[in-house]
Amino acid sequence: MEAFLEIDPASDFSIDNLPYGCYSTRGGGGNGGAAAPPRRALCVALGNSVVDLGALQRAGLFSGPVLSKHADCFQTDALNGFMALGQPAWREARATLRRLLSASEAALRDDAALRAEAIVPMSDVTLHLPFSVGDYTDFYASRYHAHNCGVMFRDASVALPRNWLHLPIGYHGRASSIVVSGTPVQRPRGQVLDAASDTPVMRPCAAVDFELEVACVMGTGNELGSSIPADGAAASIFGLALMNDWSARDVQQWEMLPLGPFNSKNWATQLSPWVVTLEALEPFRCDAPVQEPGVLPYLREADRHVYDINLTASILPEGGPETLVAESNYKHIYWTFPQMAAHHTFGGCNLRTGDVLGSGTCSGPGPNQRACLLERTWGGKDPVKLEGGAGQRTYLRDGDSVVIRGWAGGGGGGGGAGRRRVGFGECRGKLLPSPAL
Amino acid sequence: MEAFLEIDPASDFSIDNLPYGCYSTRGGGGNGGAAAPPRRALCVALGNSVVDLGALQRAGLFSGPVLSKHADCFQTDALNGFMALGQPAWREARATLRRLLSASEAALRDDAALRAEAIVPMSDVTLHLPFSVGDYTDFYASRYHAHNCGVMFRDASVALPRNWLHLPIGYHGRASSIVVSGTPVQRPRGQVLDAASDTPVMRPCAAVDFELEVACVMGTGNELGSSIPADGAAASIFGLALMNDWSARDVQQWEMLPLGPFNSKNWATQLSPWVVTLEALEPFRCDAPVQEPGVLPYLREADRHVYDINLTASILPEGGPETLVAESNYKHIYWTFPQMAAHHTFGGCNLRTGDVLGSGTCSGPGPNQRACLLERTWGGKDPVKLEGGAGQRTYLRDGDSVVIRGWAGGGGGGGGAGRRRVGFGECRGKLLPSPAL
Repeated sequence: MEAFLEIDPASDFSIDNLPYGCYSTRGGGGNGGAAAPPRRALCVALGNSVVDLGALQRAGLFSGPVLSKHADCFQTDALNGFMALGQPAWREARATLRRLLSASEAALRDDAALRAEAIVPMSDVTLHLPFSVGDYTDFYASRYHAHNCGVMFRDASVALPRNWLHLPIGYHGRASSIVVSGTPVQRPRGQVLDAASDTPVMRPCAAVDFELEVACVMGTGNELGSSIPADGAAASIFGLALMNDWSARDVQQWEMLPLGPFNSKNWATQLSPWVVTLEALEPFRCDAPVQEPGVLPYLREADRHVYDINLTASILPEGGPETLVAESNYKHIYWTFPQMAAHHTFGGCNLRTGDVLGSGTCSGPGPNQRACLLERTWGGKDPVKLEGGAGQRTYLRDGDSVVIRGWAGGGGGGGGAGRRRVGFGECRGKLLPSPAL
Repeated sequence: MEAFLEIDPASDFSIDNLPYGCYSTRGGGGNGGAAAPPRRALCVALGNSVVDLGALQRAGLFSGPVLSKHADCFQTDALNGFMALGQPAWREARATLRRLLSASEAALRDDAALRAEAIVPMSDVTLHLPFSVGDYTDFYASRYHAHNCGVMFRDASVALPRNWLHLPIGYHGRASSIVVSGTPVQRPRGQVLDAASDTPVMRPCAAVDFELEVACVMGTGNELGSSIPADGAAASIFGLALMNDWSARDVQQWEMLPLGPFNSKNWATQLSPWVVTLEALEPFRCDAPVQEPGVLPYLREADRHVYDINLTASILPEGGPETLVAESNYKHIYWTFPQMAAHHTFGGCNLRTGDVLGSGTCSGPGPNQRACLLERTWGGKDPVKLEGGAGQRTYLRDGDSVVIRGWAGGGGGGGGAGRRRVGFGECRGKLLPSPAL
């Protein structure tokens, strides 16, 4: 299938992708005039454009059996209502959009007025978080990451926590501070243990790190007291996004025992503006790592799989060129999102539309696949050299931006080679100086 | 000041209290007919009645300078809009309500039609959570509780975690599973370590516990990247409620390292239906425990205080009489809610209207002041004997209800003796059997 718009083969946003987002233009939403206040509208990405879902819906083009009953679901700035409709609605929307955007369909292609309203150049828009976040949970699902942390902080012989191979370890995160790509973040202040004096002090964090993660956006949930089986959980997942779990390592080290990370994590968590649906990722399925020892029945998956998604993280110092500091892949993750959902709900906890599950730092086996600076520099012993004479980094400096990218297919290795690229765009954030103490 | 309704002196809900809630009647809200669907409406409690705030507002009785500008703030089923207006609105609403409900004011007292609409017997109503919960954070702020846990799980010589006296330790909790008093909760299933085989198994939790806590409901918050100073934080707090932080101890023990409690806590957290304002608690202020060693400047309070609030927890087995198992007081808490808010936001995390901060188990110094079964039975070594021949408990049995109560004044000891009782009502929940595995 070809789109009626010309799409650069290197674009993240082929017609096989169609990730969901939310945009505004300086003059207003997709159909706002220059004088209108900025209005947010839902969209999908296609090549260098965004396609306004509200405009297509107002034109009566979502006429399938499910969406025709929910004629207002895109007339808002949050996907939650649409996500709550479940997989039949998601499939119908995708099929409808692929047809409407294809070269062979006239309805939108030949309607100049509708095209002018519904198709907006990406260069003219600001992107926003496309859904309202419910609860946010972050996991610790890469065996390589957990192993590396264990070796650094304990010992290679007891690197993995005792429970690690038996359950996907997670903790509740902070939903209020989830921000979209492009939002600057501020170096946090924090209480840390001063090594010289062995007393706690308050100061700006001296160890700001990123964590390259993949986020799962729940489309539907479960009632309190019920649970989601691992095998059925994929049907509840709306899609995936990129995530940077900004971390303050010195704060984390002092606060973490006994109840887990708190202020070290809650000052900012950043998401890509695009949510890529599981359906778009389907061609890039691959086997997940074998689990040995085997897991308890509630975590078993008859159809266990992950996706072959290339993941990179770069540091862009102010004025300098980007340096690639991590090249990993989502396929290395040990615990799958369906397993995380099954574990999360096994005791009866309810997941809701818009909840976010984070994978944890998505490290792979190789040294250049370590997906945060803590691991990449091995606790500071091996700083990262930046290109263009920008010095080296153990942790981030004020003015540094972190850019996370992810894509499947479109050349490169893996099972998706030769297929059109299905990408996530960027998750980008610049670190600003700490406020005064 | 006397109310024009007769109030039993033993009532939690004197005219000096006026806690906020949300109710519905079987036939609809305050002004619904028998055929109307249940409609939820905001209210305050007064004696054996609820007073419908929406009805008073529609009658034009919130005519002060702040609330007259927000004439719809009570025409909803969630307090969030009102709470976000801030302390001037809260003070004005309280002053208005006390005047309207006093024996000396005719506006409501002598308006039979309005009284019929606005004053509803408590026995006719169902109570709901009166606000939409944003994020939920639970702290660990009682030194007695932390000490007891440390002695049980580590050793008396290192009972307190190393950071405990320097910062209010907290963790992000689960907002989706916060339920109102009266909601039955279901024994969770979980992954636990089987002691006999030393392997993890999945089974119903065998160690369901309660935790008697006080919850702080944030009225206003802060922008991401800013912080709330400890000294100003009280102005952001709308009020307090009772909380039962239901806990699955066997699940907790296996899952907790390294990232903190997760499924052991996220299956249910229960709140009292009434939120008592800080203004109503003002007469019961008392000194908070002295902090030695001193705390860092961002945690210092010029006006450091807590409140003298009696707290009890009882177990009510099916068909049996209640047994009082814990008698504590909020005044024993070491870290105050303003300190928790200051710490939570020190790194730039944003708090929002409707966020809940939990005190953690509110234990006092005495053995009968240990406010969860883990502590009360000293890890199971000293089971609690129930009255009426209902046996003994290490942890809860299916069918047991836990009833938490809290009140200031109205007789008894403490600084509030002789003042009218300002109570929280109950936080009550019954434990149902676990679903099949």
